[in-house]
Amino acid sequence: MEAPSSGPVREFFLPELPRTLPFRYHPKAAQIEFASNGWVREYLADCFASESELLFFLRQRNGLYGPLTIPDAGAGRARDVADWYQFVTVIDTFVSDRTGLGADLDDALAVFGSIVSDFIPDQIPGQIRGRPRATAADEPRVDQVAYGRAARDLWRRISAGLSRAQTQRLVTALADFLRGCATEIDTKLAGAVPDYETCLAVRLDSFGCDFIELMTEYGAEVDLSDLRTELAEVHDHCRRQMIIVNDLLSWRKEHAQDDPMTVVRVLVEHDGLPLQAAVDRLCELVAWHEREYTRTRDALLAGPLGARADVRAYLGAVDLLMGGSQEFEYLTPRYFGDGAVWDGSTSGWIDLHAPVTRFRPTPLTTDERAPLIPLPTDERLPAGDHPPGGS
Amino acid sequence: MEAPSSGPVREFFLPELPRTLPFRYHPKAAQIEFASNGWVREYLADCFASESELLFFLRQRNGLYGPLTIPDAGAGRARDVADWYQFVTVIDTFVSDRTGLGADLDDALAVFGSIVSDFIPDQIPGQIRGRPRATAADEPRVDQVAYGRAARDLWRRISAGLSRAQTQRLVTALADFLRGCATEIDTKLAGAVPDYETCLAVRLDSFGCDFIELMTEYGAEVDLSDLRTELAEVHDHCRRQMIIVNDLLSWRKEHAQDDPMTVVRVLVEHDGLPLQAAVDRLCELVAWHEREYTRTRDALLAGPLGARADVRAYLGAVDLLMGGSQEFEYLTPRYFGDGAVWDGSTSGWIDLHAPVTRFRPTPLTTDERAPLIPLPTDERLPAGDHPPGGS
Repeated sequence: MEAPSSGPVREFFLPELPRTLPFRYHPKAAQIEFASNGWVREYLADCFASESELLFFLRQRNGLYGPLTIPDAGAGRARDVADWYQFVTVIDTFVSDRTGLGADLDDALAVFGSIVSDFIPDQIPGQIRGRPRATAADEPRVDQVAYGRAARDLWRRISAGLSRAQTQRLVTALADFLRGCATEIDTKLAGAVPDYETCLAVRLDSFGCDFIELMTEYGAEVDLSDLRTELAEVHDHCRRQMIIVNDLLSWRKEHAQDDPMTVVRVLVEHDGLPLQAAVDRLCELVAWHEREYTRTRDALLAGPLGARADVRAYLGAVDLLMGGSQEFEYLTPRYFGDGAVWDGSTSGWIDLHAPVTRFRPTPLTTDERAPLIPLPTDERLPAGDHPPGGS
Repeated sequence: MEAPSSGPVREFFLPELPRTLPFRYHPKAAQIEFASNGWVREYLADCFASESELLFFLRQRNGLYGPLTIPDAGAGRARDVADWYQFVTVIDTFVSDRTGLGADLDDALAVFGSIVSDFIPDQIPGQIRGRPRATAADEPRVDQVAYGRAARDLWRRISAGLSRAQTQRLVTALADFLRGCATEIDTKLAGAVPDYETCLAVRLDSFGCDFIELMTEYGAEVDLSDLRTELAEVHDHCRRQMIIVNDLLSWRKEHAQDDPMTVVRVLVEHDGLPLQAAVDRLCELVAWHEREYTRTRDALLAGPLGARADVRAYLGAVDLLMGGSQEFEYLTPRYFGDGAVWDGSTSGWIDLHAPVTRFRPTPLTTDERAPLIPLPTDERLPAGDHPPGGS
């Protein structure tokens, strides 16, 4: 544990990450984002306590995650995937919120069970379809109704473009994601910080890796359900690179929300590294997984599977997934605070206490250590409520 | 003047506008917007009182106006034009601000004189270049220095792609824009509401019509300096359509800022129409100018000038300018309030009192007439400070 003489650590320096993988915005990214915002309003507005809370969410620009991660997909599929990611990000938002789904594990499990149940198509075996709705009260919660209606709309649109094997993977992936979310709630309520591999195992679920890969197939219009084993090593490096990049770029938010399930916190609180050393170590891991991803991908392409056009298309799409996911994480105000606007910078000092932060070329001076701007009225977790990580 | 029994008018209904002209986003719109935000930070940050004020401006997404109005231009020119529009929008912002450039006409004229002077290239005749810097104090204001440095950067980048005739038009256009801004400041400080044609004459300058057409040429890589007369009728309908659309979509903001120089206010306060009747009349004018634009454009294309490839390219670009400008005005939080996020809707009830408004499918109920969300801390002109227009 670190104990710097100048008081609690409130800043760290994020170096330039390698970014060896390409990224592109979908040519209709802007229109897709706006239309997807309309879909969130139509289907999920009831999950938010007020218009103000809904706008708070929409300002995070989560509707760009789809257009950035499947930039070469047709506009229809890109829009479907944009709405999908908004849907799971709404769930993730309320899981992180101790006044929302994150307040009570049983309540969350009831809602999650209902979502999976609503998501089940008629053609899926009865042992899943028949699962009863476990609600805490007689009437379903208003957010539960909204999630169910949204899930059915997404199911209707997306399943038409999936094979039978892919539809079964999608149902399982959603259930795994919700299980990961539930574990995160449980861990957070218990306040425990796990070891690195335990944390990653949960994050692989709660990050939605299975459905991210499936959405990448959907965007590329391929079905690689028969190659899960052959792709496992490539996927492992892809997933770990994406999760570590996410945990680095979202650390300011996770820190403010006191989230124990991030690799930054694991290295600081479980392994005892000072914050900056933990960040530097994770940057090395990003570079390593990115190199190993490229090496294993190239090995696959050089072998017999490289002769398959669908494999080549998919692996090109995974490159863009990784590059686009990282681009999104720089730009979203979800991580740097409501009201942040990205100016294209990708490295610098990050102030854990600023309600709206940015990459700064130099550390804060003594004078600057007061908050830069007043807290927005709907910033629900003021940074000052929590001790900085690693101290 | 209207005097409804239910109290001051605080809402109006905006019908669907015809939108007969095409629009597209530049394929690199997102990247251009982020990079242009970085340019504003680098060159114009000193014009803003604080980081918070800079972010307030950047949240308006003015960096999208270029990519939306010249969507087919090369990425380099689209970026130049994006930065240009950010530059003039910063000026326009402080002209509207009674604590900024809008506070004092003499101060503003000194800054404007300095901007034009900084903008003058060496090859322009001496009678403009030699204009002395009229500063109110010995040292130039900090914003004056920033505007000058930004103007020189834009000049360096853009003038390389312009003919001699176009460079002279650009200098004149900037001077006309600043003259229009000065007239708006003067009128606003006097509190007078002009008649329709007087208002439009000022707006044609302050809206920047001359440089908007020039930037459209720049994006299309053509030089139509020899055809100003032949294009005059087409341009007149284009300009009036754009200004009326702008005044309709920005009315909530202009109303909150008590701006007398808008056609909405002219019809209400000078011509005595009730607000809704004024809006309906302006919607008819938009449709009429759009039809007349199309008719005069087609007549030009059917005549001898239609044989010129540069004319055809330019007129196609003007279609996209008009369509793209309108798309921008729906999406910018500049008009619907800091914190607004567009959901793709283009018609509905607009609440003049809401700090963050949107197109609502129905008018406010009595219960909803309280503000929807708390005012942002940096909303500098709370709507409640001003009486609603037309009452």
